[in-house]
Amino acid sequence: MKIHDIAGFANPLRVRIALAEKGLLDQVEFVPVDVMGGEHRKPAFLAKNPSGTVPVLELDDGTFLSECTAITEYLDHAHGEKTLTGRTALERGIIHMLQRKVEAGFLNAVGAYFHHATDGLGPVLETYQNQDWGRHQREIALKTLVWMDGLLEEHDYLAGDQFTVVDITAMAGFAFASAAGIAIPDDLTRLTAWHQRVTARPSLARAV
Amino acid sequence: MKIHDIAGFANPLRVRIALAEKGLLDQVEFVPVDVMGGEHRKPAFLAKNPSGTVPVLELDDGTFLSECTAITEYLDHAHGEKTLTGRTALERGIIHMLQRKVEAGFLNAVGAYFHHATDGLGPVLETYQNQDWGRHQREIALKTLVWMDGLLEEHDYLAGDQFTVVDITAMAGFAFASAAGIAIPDDLTRLTAWHQRVTARPSLARAV
Ligand SMILES: N[C@@H](CCC(=O)N[C@@H](CS)C(=O)NCC(=O)O)C(=O)O
Ligand SMILES: N[C@@H](CCC(=O)N[C@@H](CS)C(=O)NCC(=O)O)C(=O)O
Repeated sequence: MKIHDIAGFANPLRVRIALAEKGLLDQVEFVPVDVMGGEHRKPAFLAKNPSGTVPVLELDDGTFLSECTAITEYLDHAHGEKTLTGRTALERGIIHMLQRKVEAGFLNAVGAYFHHATDGLGPVLETYQNQDWGRHQREIALKTLVWMDGLLEEHDYLAGDQFTVVDITAMAGFAFASAAGIAIPDDLTRLTAWHQRVTARPSLARAV
Repeated sequence: MKIHDIAGFANPLRVRIALAEKGLLDQVEFVPVDVMGGEHRKPAFLAKNPSGTVPVLELDDGTFLSECTAITEYLDHAHGEKTLTGRTALERGIIHMLQRKVEAGFLNAVGAYFHHATDGLGPVLETYQNQDWGRHQREIALKTLVWMDGLLEEHDYLAGDQFTVVDITAMAGFAFASAAGIAIPDDLTRLTAWHQRVTARPSLARAV
């Protein structure tokens, strides 16, 4: 299989971590997409993903899968035991719920701040900016961090005792946050400890 | 199990359709939430769902699940064969991907237009409005409809030959769209036919 993406970006990182956690990195050919040059908005790439975003997974039969959580869902079902998205109905429901809340309230909120209220990817790519929206989303991101800290009160990972796609989404949020100048507030000590714990996982070093 | 929600709203409709499709409506007690009175923003409800949104599924063991797609994921795994979220790894990946694109590009975009660029739920509940953002999201919704029409070129449903959670998300989008005064453009004939086809499903009549 192939991954069309670009190193160093937040969303591509999500799938790279998933691949590393599943032990699949050596089964993948990475095809670089020139995002800063706008390649992802040209017809050849839009045929792979009409949303014009990376990453995209290309299967050997020519199927294209986009959206990080959809790619993760596929990989987790196609390769060995399900470790990232939950095994029982209840686990799957809870992990899916938490992934969405971390994504909407933190990753996407920080992303909106970055794209709308800072220079983002620069004037050529940022064709629509809305400063006020970006600043509003920054407030949402900061509130979500407090809630995430609370999730860690009794567990090492955001969805419980196991590392899951929820932690992956949060790590992508922190990659964006550091690009946007947002740090974990000092009083969120559980989240700081979680961040160190996850950063120390071998998959994180292999993913970048 | 219990569903905390309010009849006539777009997101509650999603889970009601899922319950009807799975034949589970008679196993559920509906607990009305006074959204117009702001009950969903008070501590008692926030303890059930920190995001302050309906619907919420309460299981018999006291677990609360929020986020429509997470509830659907749970229901589809806990009750009989998986009919709404896909069976094989590839089906699951594709359905998950399309659900997200229809949700972000249509349901949530129409929702943003409704909440930000119209009166939405009224001045008490709409504590932050951003007209320009709402109008921008309306453009995105209209573009997404064109892409959705294309998905129907060879199939009766948005993810293929079977009705899935992707169709449910789209139907919720159309519920919002009609509240916001957005109709299916006349030239999108496949989408119009799809809308009639889905509206005629028995689950739709049972869900409202
Ligand atoms: N919802 C998408 C988001 C993907 C996304 O936004 N990727 C960014 C890179 S971090 C991108 O392609 N940006 C291109 C652009 O904004 O023009 C997913 O889950 O894959
Ligand atoms: N992402 C949530 C969205 C739920 C949602 O936004 N529900 C609306 C009703 S359609 C709501 O509770 N609105 C309350 C408000 O906006 O204050 C889901 O999938 O359940």
